[in-house]
This record gives sequence, C-alpha cells and structure tokens, in this order.
Amino acid sequence: MSIKGVVYRDSHDVSIEEIDEPEIEHPNDAILDVTTTAICGSDLHMYEGRAGADQGMVFGHEIMGRIAETGEGVDTLEKGDRVVLPFNVACGFCENCEEGHYGYCETVAETPGGAYGYVKMGPYQGGQAEKVRVPYADFNALTLPDEGNEEDFIMLADVFPTGWHGTELADLQSGESVAIYGAGPVGLMAAYSAKLKGASEIYVVDRVESRLELAEEYCDATTINFEEENAAEAIVDAHGNPVDKGVDAVGYQAIDGARDGDHPYDHERENPSLVVNQLIQAVEASGKIGIVGLYISEEPDPPEQIDEQGTLDINLGLAFEKGLRFGTGQCPVKRYNRKLRDMITSGRAEPGFLVSHTVSLDDAPEMYERFDEREEGVTKVLLTP
Amino acid sequence: MSIKGVVYRDSHDVSIEEIDEPEIEHPNDAILDVTTTAICGSDLHMYEGRAGADQGMVFGHEIMGRIAETGEGVDTLEKGDRVVLPFNVACGFCENCEEGHYGYCETVAETPGGAYGYVKMGPYQGGQAEKVRVPYADFNALTLPDEGNEEDFIMLADVFPTGWHGTELADLQSGESVAIYGAGPVGLMAAYSAKLKGASEIYVVDRVESRLELAEEYCDATTINFEEENAAEAIVDAHGNPVDKGVDAVGYQAIDGARDGDHPYDHERENPSLVVNQLIQAVEASGKIGIVGLYISEEPDPPEQIDEQGTLDINLGLAFEKGLRFGTGQCPVKRYNRKLRDMITSGRAEPGFLVSHTVSLDDAPEMYERFDEREEGVTKVLLTP
Amino acid sequence: MSIKGVVYRDSHDVSIEEIDEPEIEHPNDAILDVTTTAICGSDLHMYEGRAGADQGMVFGHEIMGRIAETGEGVDTLEKGDRVVLPFNVACGFCENCEEGHYGYCETVAETPGGAYGYVKMGPYQGGQAEKVRVPYADFNALTLPDEGNEEDFIMLADVFPTGWHGTELADLQSGESVAIYGAGPVGLMAAYSAKLKGASEIYVVDRVESRLELAEEYCDATTINFEEENAAEAIVDAHGNPVDKGVDAVGYQAIDGARDGDHPYDHERENPSLVVNQLIQAVEASGKIGIVGLYISEEPDPPEQIDEQGTLDINLGLAFEKGLRFGTGQCPVKRYNRKLRDMITSGRAEPGFLVSHTVSLDDAPEMYERFDEREEGVTKVLLTP
Amino acid sequence: MSIKGVVYRDSHDVSIEEIDEPEIEHPNDAILDVTTTAICGSDLHMYEGRAGADQGMVFGHEIMGRIAETGEGVDTLEKGDRVVLPFNVACGFCENCEEGHYGYCETVAETPGGAYGYVKMGPYQGGQAEKVRVPYADFNALTLPDEGNEEDFIMLADVFPTGWHGTELADLQSGESVAIYGAGPVGLMAAYSAKLKGASEIYVVDRVESRLELAEEYCDATTINFEEENAAEAIVDAHGNPVDKGVDAVGYQAIDGARDGDHPYDHERENPSLVVNQLIQAVEASGKIGIVGLYISEEPDPPEQIDEQGTLDINLGLAFEKGLRFGTGQCPVKRYNRKLRDMITSGRAEPGFLVSHTVSLDDAPEMYERFDEREEGVTKVLLTP
Repeated sequence: MSIKGVVYRDSHDVSIEEIDEPEIEHPNDAILDVTTTAICGSDLHMYEGRAGADQGMVFGHEIMGRIAETGEGVDTLEKGDRVVLPFNVACGFCENCEEGHYGYCETVAETPGGAYGYVKMGPYQGGQAEKVRVPYADFNALTLPDEGNEEDFIMLADVFPTGWHGTELADLQSGESVAIYGAGPVGLMAAYSAKLKGASEIYVVDRVESRLELAEEYCDATTINFEEENAAEAIVDAHGNPVDKGVDAVGYQAIDGARDGDHPYDHERENPSLVVNQLIQAVEASGKIGIVGLYISEEPDPPEQIDEQGTLDINLGLAFEKGLRFGTGQCPVKRYNRKLRDMITSGRAEPGFLVSHTVSLDDAPEMYERFDEREEGVTKVLLTP
Repeated sequence: MSIKGVVYRDSHDVSIEEIDEPEIEHPNDAILDVTTTAICGSDLHMYEGRAGADQGMVFGHEIMGRIAETGEGVDTLEKGDRVVLPFNVACGFCENCEEGHYGYCETVAETPGGAYGYVKMGPYQGGQAEKVRVPYADFNALTLPDEGNEEDFIMLADVFPTGWHGTELADLQSGESVAIYGAGPVGLMAAYSAKLKGASEIYVVDRVESRLELAEEYCDATTINFEEENAAEAIVDAHGNPVDKGVDAVGYQAIDGARDGDHPYDHERENPSLVVNQLIQAVEASGKIGIVGLYISEEPDPPEQIDEQGTLDINLGLAFEKGLRFGTGQCPVKRYNRKLRDMITSGRAEPGFLVSHTVSLDDAPEMYERFDEREEGVTKVLLTP
Repeated sequence: MSIKGVVYRDSHDVSIEEIDEPEIEHPNDAILDVTTTAICGSDLHMYEGRAGADQGMVFGHEIMGRIAETGEGVDTLEKGDRVVLPFNVACGFCENCEEGHYGYCETVAETPGGAYGYVKMGPYQGGQAEKVRVPYADFNALTLPDEGNEEDFIMLADVFPTGWHGTELADLQSGESVAIYGAGPVGLMAAYSAKLKGASEIYVVDRVESRLELAEEYCDATTINFEEENAAEAIVDAHGNPVDKGVDAVGYQAIDGARDGDHPYDHERENPSLVVNQLIQAVEASGKIGIVGLYISEEPDPPEQIDEQGTLDINLGLAFEKGLRFGTGQCPVKRYNRKLRDMITSGRAEPGFLVSHTVSLDDAPEMYERFDEREEGVTKVLLTP
Repeated sequence: MSIKGVVYRDSHDVSIEEIDEPEIEHPNDAILDVTTTAICGSDLHMYEGRAGADQGMVFGHEIMGRIAETGEGVDTLEKGDRVVLPFNVACGFCENCEEGHYGYCETVAETPGGAYGYVKMGPYQGGQAEKVRVPYADFNALTLPDEGNEEDFIMLADVFPTGWHGTELADLQSGESVAIYGAGPVGLMAAYSAKLKGASEIYVVDRVESRLELAEEYCDATTINFEEENAAEAIVDAHGNPVDKGVDAVGYQAIDGARDGDHPYDHERENPSLVVNQLIQAVEASGKIGIVGLYISEEPDPPEQIDEQGTLDINLGLAFEKGLRFGTGQCPVKRYNRKLRDMITSGRAEPGFLVSHTVSLDDAPEMYERFDEREEGVTKVLLTP
C-alpha cells in the first residue's frame, strides 16, 4: 500500500510522490491519518540544500490528525481520537526526557533529539503525507477536543510552543520588556506569548512589512524595520533603556540591514552572529536571552562569509560585563503544549492568526518555493492531505 | 590624617603609600578598621596594566575587619562589630538590587556594578589599606561571630561566593557531574562548592600541580593537567560521557595547552575562547555552563591575538544543537554570603584551606609579583594591615 | 503643627481628628503629602474591634502622594516626586528582606513584619491622613510617572500585589485553571492577576452580586454564589475536574453558605476553616493553594464558634493524600510592584476598575461603616486628603 | 507456577504463602527476580489493620533485583539487568507524570497514585516475594551497576528519596538550619539528605535512643528526645532562634511526649496534629515545612481521640502570621533516584547505614512484629527472597 507525501529530491526541489504506507512497528506505535500539516521555516534549511538531507526523505514535523490504528501497548488513545503531535519524537523515560528536555531524547536518535522528517534526528517519516507513524504514541500525541479550529491547534506542533520557549529561556516575567528578533512564525509566536504572559513592552524586529503588521495587530508590539535603522539602538531609544529580556527567533541566517540591491533576501548578506550581538547590546545588565533561531555546528557548503564549523564572533566580553544569561536549543514541545492547548480551548489564545495559506498537499512544491522566497504575505502555510 | 594603603603606580608596579584617611561622607556609611584583606586574581588584570587603572588608585576588594565608626543613618552596626564585606558595593534598593543582582547595582556607579578598589566600578577606595569606607553599611557589611578564623571568613568577601556562584549559574544539583576549568582560588572554591552541594563527580582542569593537589585533597576532585592532554576529551573519557554541568573559572586569559618554552605563563599563548569552547564540548546536551572567569569588552593594549573588542570565536552552532544554557558575570556576593558564613560557623565549610601566605601589608608589592608569576605554591595571599 | 487623620476610637468608631504633623526622624526618612489613600478589608478587622487596636491609632496602609521632604540619607527621591508606598514597612537589609520576604522584615517591628497604621506591626502612623512619614524611603517608595490615574496606581499599595501574590503562592501558570474564594478587592485582584497571567479558566466564589459581576466583566471569570450551591462541588462540576490551583482571598471570617435570616453579613455564621477545606476539595492532586486571606493566632473576644488560639479543623489527611502545597501570609509588595506599575503604565493592566467610591478624607467614618456592612456596590473606597 | 510472598491475613498477622507467579500482562511489563526487599514504616499502617487492606494482599514496595523477562515493548532493559524500583507505579505520560508528580499518576489507579502492594494504590502485587511484575518497565526501573551494596541501593526504592523529598518540599538550601521530626527510616534519611545538601544545623526529634544515635553519628545532627523536653522549645533554644525549615517525618500517628506507663509505644497517646503544630512554632517567619509523614483522610476504626475524617486542629493563624509554606504528600521517587544513585555509585552517599537486620523472606512475619513494636535497634529490615 502506498500514500502520498512531500519528498525531497534536491536543493530547491520537492515533489509529491507515492511512499510506503506506515505500519505499526512497535507495540507503543500509533498510525495517524493526517488532517493538517504545515511547512516550517526550519524545513527551508533542508530545502535550500544547506543541511545535508538525503534524497527521498519525506519532510514535515508539524502534524495533526486522527488516530487510525494503535499498537497493543498503547493505553490511552483510540481510533478516531483527534491529536496534535509535538515535532519532537521522544521516549518519555530516558534521563533527558525525565528532566523535561524532550528535545534531547537519548533513545530515539544517535545524537540526542528526534523529530519527524528531519535530517540527523532519527529515521522518522515526515508528516507532510497522508499518514504518519507515531512512536511512543501515549507519550507523543496530545489529545484535542473534537471542536476547535485546525488553524489554532496545528500551531501546537511547533511554532506556538517554540515561540513560548523563547520567552521561557529568557525567563520573561509579567510586566517586563522584551526585544524579539524575527517576525517569522516563531518570532510572531514569541511576541504573542509575551503578550499572553503580560509583558509590558514588546519590540519586534524584521523587515517584511506584512509580518510586522501582524506583530502590531495581534501582539501589541512596537515594530522595528532593521533595514531602516540600527535595531538595537532603535530598541534602546524607544524603551528609554535597554530591555529586560531578548529572544532570537532568527538564527544563523540573519542578514545585515544594509541593502545593496533590490532582492529582499540575499544569502550574501548573511551575518550569523548579528542577532546575538545585537541582543547583547539591547538587553540590560542582568538580563536574559532566549535563542530559538537555528544555529548549526557545520554546514556542508556555506556561503563564503559563514564559518564551516559554526563558530561565531560573539561579544562575550560585553555579555560578561552585563552578567547576561543565555538559553539555546530546540523546544521541548511537551513541556508546554497541554497548557497552550487549554488556552486555545478556553479562548484565551488564538495563534491561528498566523496562517496565511491553506492548500492541498499537492500544492506543497509551489508553496515551498514561495515561502523560501520570503514572499510578502506568505507567513504560514498549511497543507491538508 | 593619613593611613597606609597599596597604591597602583604603573604596569607591574604597586607600592605602600600614605593615603587620606577615609571619613563618613553619607549617613549610611561606616568606617572599617581592616584586619585582613586579600589579593585577588582579578587584581592582576589591573596590575598587569591591561585594565586601564588610573595611577594612584588603592587596590583591594576582599576585606574584613572591625567597625570603627558609623554614620547616623546606620541602624544595625556598632563600633567593634566584626564584619566581612562583599566585594560588590551596592545600594540595596535599585531595581537590580531588588532582584538580587547585587553585582549590577544601578546607584553606585555609572555603568551598573560597584566594587572597592576596582577600575570602572565607582570611586570607592580599595581595602588593601588600614581603613576603608563602607557605603550603605547596614546593607553591605555581614556581621561575624567574634570567634572563628580570619582565613575562613575572608573567603566570604569574594572567592568562596564567586566559586559558589559558578555552580549556581550552572544550576548544579546534588548528584550531578561537573567540569571546572581553572584551579586558581575561584576554581578551587567552585570545586569546593560542588563538593559541599553533593556533586557526584568533580573534574578540575589546570596545570599548576600544587593547585590540582588542593583540588584532590579538599574537593574530592579528579584532576586534569591540560598541558598533558586535551582537557575536554579527558573529561569525557574519565566520565564515560559528557558531564552534566560546567564552570569556567579562567576567563579570557586562558592559554593553550601546547607549550613551547620553559616559562609557565606566557601571554603569547592566550586563547580567549578556549575554555568556553572546551566546555561546549565537555558538557552534555541540555547542560548548563556558569562563566565566572573574567571576560572584558575592550582591552587598551591587548596581546596580538586578542580581539580589542572582546568578540570571541564561540562554537554557538554546537551549543545550540546541544541546547546548552550559559550564565555569566560577577557574583552577587550578598545572595550567598550569609548562608556560607553559617556553613563556616557550624563547621560544615572550611574554605581557608586555600590560604598559602599571610603577610603584613608592607609585603604586598612582593606578593603581587609572585602571585602574578603564578609561582608554584602561591595560591591565596592574605595581607594583615 | 497638626494635620487631619482618621483616628480609631473604639469598635465601629473612627473619627477625623487633628494629629501631630510627621517629621523626619531618621536620615533615611521622607515625608509624603498624601494625595490618595484607601480603606482596606484588613482595616475592618481593627474597626470591628477584633484585633486589639489601641485607641488613638491612625489607620491606613494604602498610600500614594508626592514627596514633601527628604532626610539627608535619601539618595534617589526629590521633593515633588510622585510615589506609591507598599503597605509593608521594611528596611531592605535584614535577612528576610534580603530573601525578598519584605512582609517579614526583622528590623522595623518586634515580631517580623511592619506596616503603616496597623496593630502589632510597628509604631508607624497610618496614611489616612494629610501626611505620612516614610521610613527607609529609597527602599519603600516606588516612583510613578506624572501622568496616569490615581485609581490605578493606588492599587499598587496593597490589593493588586496581594491578589497577584495569591496567584504566586499558588504558582499559577499560564494555561492553568484556578479557583478563587472571595470577590472582595483582594479576590478580584487575584482573579484579574490570573487573567493577566493567561490562566485558562478562572472560578470566583462570593455571594455579593455586584462583586461577582466585576469578576465576570473584568476578569473573564466564571462566578459561583456560595449561598446558592456548594462552591467546591460547583467548581469541580463546571470544570469537569478539580482545578489546578486555588486562592483563598477570604480568611478566617469565612461564613457558611446556609443563610437563616435576611442580613447579608452575620458573624454568627463564621466558619474559619471553611475556605481552606473547600479548596482542598476543589484542587486536583499535586495542586497548590495560595492563602492571602487573613488568619490570626489569637482573637481577644471572638464569636463563640471561633477558637481563641487560632487552631482550625483542617482536612490535612485529604490534603496529604492529594499531595497539595500551601503558601500563606501577607504580600511582599516590593517583590511585584515595579513590574505591576509597568503593566499599568504601558496600558496592559487597569486595576482601577475596582474603585467604587472616591470621597474626601472627611467622609471616611461613613464609608468605614458602609464598607463594613458589605453594602452592595461598595467595593473599594478611595479617600483624597 | 507459584512463588513465595508475604501475605496479609489480618491485623498484626502476615504469613509466607505460595502465590501465583507474575506474568507479562502488557507489552511494557517486565518481570523481576527480587534480590532484596524491605519492610517500610508505611507497611505498618496496613499491618496494624488501620488502613483497610484486603486479606490475601501481598505487601512490599521497596524492591530491587534482576530483570527476568521483558515484554515486547520494553526497549532499554534486558534479562539480567540489575535494577531498583521506585515504590510508585507510574505511566510516565499522563499530565501529573509529565509535570514530575509521579506519586499522583492518573493512569495506574482510580484515584491518582500507584504503588506495589499498597491499599488503594492499584492492583499491583507487592515485592516482598520472589518475583514481581513491573508495569511500564522502561519508565519504572532504574538500572544499577553490577557492583555496589544492596544495602545502599535498596534505599533508593523509598526511604532515601522520601527523606530527600522532605527536604525538597521544605526547599532546604545549603547553609540553612532544619528541624526534622522523626528518626525512623524516613526521618534519618531526611537528616542524611540535609547533611548531603550542606545544611548548617540539623535538629532531629525522636525518643528511641538507638535512632537518635544514628542521627548524631551519620547525619551530624543535634538530637532531642521529646519525652524529656518540649521539642519545639528545645530546638529554638538550641538554635538561638527558630530554624529556617522543617520536615515532618512522623505523620498522624505522632504521640505526646508525656508518658504514663512503661510501654514505649501506646496508641492512646496519639495526637495527630502535634508535629505540624510544633513545626509551626519551631520554624521562623517565611520558613517552609515539608510533610512526608503519612496523613490519611479516613480511618476505618481509629483510636478514640483521632478524628475519623482526618481533620486536624492546625494552628493556621500562627502559620499565616509567620507566612509559612507547606508541602505534603508522597515522594515522586523518579524525580530523585537517578541522581541519588550516582551519589551512591561515586561514594558520596552511603544510606545503607540505616540497615539493622537482613533476614530471609521466611523471617518476615517475626520482623513485622518486632518492627511494629518499635523495638530498640530495629531500624530497617531487609528481606532476601
């Protein structure tokens, strides 16, 4: 039997292909009929050929749907249950899982950390497909009420918890001020999280106007276009002081504000240490910075100015003088998704405002291309298999 | 009236001179008769002429003694009280002090953070002198019992809390393993703190044998000489895995293990990002690293290979992939000194094992020179005015 | 020189009298021209003659105004500065203050804990007067912007931080459900705090309809009238399960829901352990309960059914079986007031919705009487000297 | 097939009987060959007939041994692996488990919380037998090195983590003082934990001299015999002040110090609120109290002076005035056992000092009787099937 899925072929090339239908391989597995899946900014690292993904890989780690089948060790799920999956695949019983570091599970992959459809994170088929196998299903599936928008709930797979995690790594408290670099899906969710937590001032930095508008409208943020001014200075000016906390929702593909030509996105302008150093400037002494934008330790064939080994020129001297703290790494979705689900269910949170496009699975190749271009207005793309 | 004090004249040149006797300048001041003061590793940054200290400055921020006089706003101290001072000068009521960030007081200096006898940390006379003025004395003086060794209590001024802070920034828990780079006074106190907290395995890296012996004898540490092997690899080998937590008690003056000539200390071998990058290797995924060794944002006239702006080549890519967290900055002594005092008073802690020399104030110039040479056996020098 | 103030004469008897004008008594003092002060529910304990207050005492611990004069040790305040005072009087440097337990300052009163105009909490004149002396003014006065409503800012003196503290003692997290007993000023502020923190479901229990309406309108709460149903059962029914967390904003003067006669408030119906035991029922296993309603260890002349020694029949057996945790005690206002002020200043919080009456100081005796009657619609009374 | 086990017959009556050999019932099960099991103080509640245990029940929740067989869903355990079990049975994936409240698992029993061989905590056979079934074995079994004393490792099943939990509920910090009521196995382990954490002063209250001697010798404790003096007053006198923190390792079967006759243990002297009220006295304002001694919500046939409903006369008034915090409930063993194991393995902790008797399973009935008598010198009994 076969199903349809989004298959990686080469740099900037994905296609819809027939793949083997997933089966129960372990008593704790479940099979999910995917109802909604999304394209994530981190998929673009693989799509651009910069992450060493193998040909034939099925992408997709933002996944929700209905349980189709369960292994005999699964105790709390039944056929038909509506669930959303954390992008992390985790066992629930290793040392890191015990301590809540679900993003660094030691059981599911060779180096700590598993995910659906992601390079170096285990052998798990991605969820941009009609069906997907869910390992340790009791642990990894979060049940949902039958009512409620797919647009809101699919955000629980990655971007809402990841944005929230950015504010948690920064230890953001109600009443504090925060600077958020990046108004892509994760940055917007970080800003939305900051609003939900009662931050007093929220500054969001990007250059795509449609994204900055969402930050203003849904997150009560003050926005800064880094192509128009030095963002760190603009934040300190606007706030009157450095801010309490910072979130990096950009990562190593940050680009300099200075703009030579017309194209909005240009890898030649990448400056991987830009955002961290700007945050070191913009955050006050004794502040904290959450880094959820992606950094990688080696890149097969990076643009010229990027170091192959992932070392960055960080202004640690200034950071030390200010006594800053930094948290990094991918989000342990399960640490947050139950409470965030309850905020959606009770109407306190509506993260689905992020969704700009909902298309059929067959349109995935086109949408990958447009999302990769950072096309104005393409914020978050849902696929419905 | 005048008193004697240790005065900075030029690079590698301090002398004992007559200085103005300190007076009550504010109702919350007290004057202290200094009974014991110590030379700190961070004094050496100024002594070597690398921190831009002004000529005529009086050094010394590790200070204990007896209250000689109090301003009319001082409520809880009386003439004759035995006290030890945190090296930080802090007001106790600004936002950072309120939140326990006593190392970043906003009231006492232009940029947050005050200290006795330290460059860029306010106008406060150092304590390597017969007397010293104590601002906000109710807040800044910790009372001591009349009995108890000066050797133990003077450690409360800086190195014992700073070593402790390293383990706090790393969030070290009982039963965890920890790697500590540096076996100078702060590194040894970090290792001793780890032992007091019930760490299961403690690895200490240095190359001065007398210091590594102290780490073994008093801190139950496994020691590693970084001139003999790659320290990060040696830690992982010895532990069987990367360790849970790490402490950097070295800072930007770290030197490479490879050794060309005979001299034990050679600024040409400095590699300021060495220790942080080694810790990123040696600490496990989801681990935490406390950085209490000094990093600076600019150095007036650095050795050739050191960046003037304090940027370092940090392997942030690997750190992100492992989800590491980092804490930096100088210790908020008051957050810990009361409880550490009680550990000394009840006999649980005896940090005075660190003291190698106790000499009169007049011998300070000689001891500065020998300590700066990292002379074998010169671990911690006390001065008794 | 004399000023006007609200003076306690006897049970249910306060009057406006001339009192001595306060003066600088210590270098760290300031004198405040009071612009707004409020009557607090805890003033009623004294007003009813149940707290052993001395005749001649000046009431009032919710105070804001302008600095009129400063002692020579005051560094950060100037004549004319607009400030609000925490109801706690605290020194800022004792062990409890160091640890943030500002409600249990060891310096300002014989048993830990000081306040303005409150029995057994030190000699400090209350603020229901034209002027008040502020001890340790740098520490105890929070500066305010010149613009902004008195109605909002005066809430920072006690009820907003105290309600917030209730949710902090309960460790309320975004997305959790919470039951709050009491919709007086503190209970409403606890519910408002829960909303600001992103609680998913908020249940508020009281019987005064005007208060329950405020809880619905401003705090998005589900309300329960305990005279109409068993509140604990109603909460579990409405939520489908016991809730995550609970807040007791009632205290020992809780009354049974069963109602014999017509009068809405009847001391004969007091049942001091009622609320705690209801919360033990209503909160889920492993939950937490914050107790900010007042309990006292001895009452001079209590109603018959109240134990003189303050022991209560608590269902500790059930609490243990559920693994519940409890936090108690008065709020350390300074731990929260700066951030809550910033939430007001930035427009995120508008706690002044609580205010039902603003009258001149001369009307205080009448308003005490009406507030003590729990008159429908008398929620929070401000006095403007 | 059958095995031998300790079977409950009636009040004060257990016998060694043949029981059904446990089998794999679920893919995540394992079967354990028990090598060491222990009698726990909480077994005595059932043994005395005060907990409503059913006839035929197999006792025992402190269990270690070797894996004999695994279900097909078990991934990380193999036949022959040496493991110790937490006394809690937990699933690892329900909401309470996710949050680390492993003692309140919602999957394994009707009311939250499962255990081996314990009334009202699920259908799980006890481990005082030759074999036992381990549900969710990957989650519930902690692997041990092949070397290392059974005496030390068996303490990881319950009493070492439970004593540790008492100090965690009290938030005991290095350098603080603590009062521990009870020097039975849990109280001694709490005192030992306090020592390992670096507490400055440890006060232990009991009346069995052999136990108090262990507290002195192994835990550096100051001991108080409550039959000789008022314990709360004695603690405050010895310390000079109330202590920072308290632990209740006694529970509702506390007995008054006043002694009429000769028998050391007399249920007529039970006073269930005694210990909590003493701790409220002995702990300082803003302190915290951990309650790990057992309290129950109803007792089938209690001694006359014990309330059937488990309500206790608690001095909540004084607790509130002091701002105390309380944590209660059974220990989530998995939260601590991995790190405590590493402390044993590295030689930092040797909790086996507690063991007074190691006997064959056949001697269990006699040892139950002697342990229930609180016979001098019977501190902890191990059984080796």
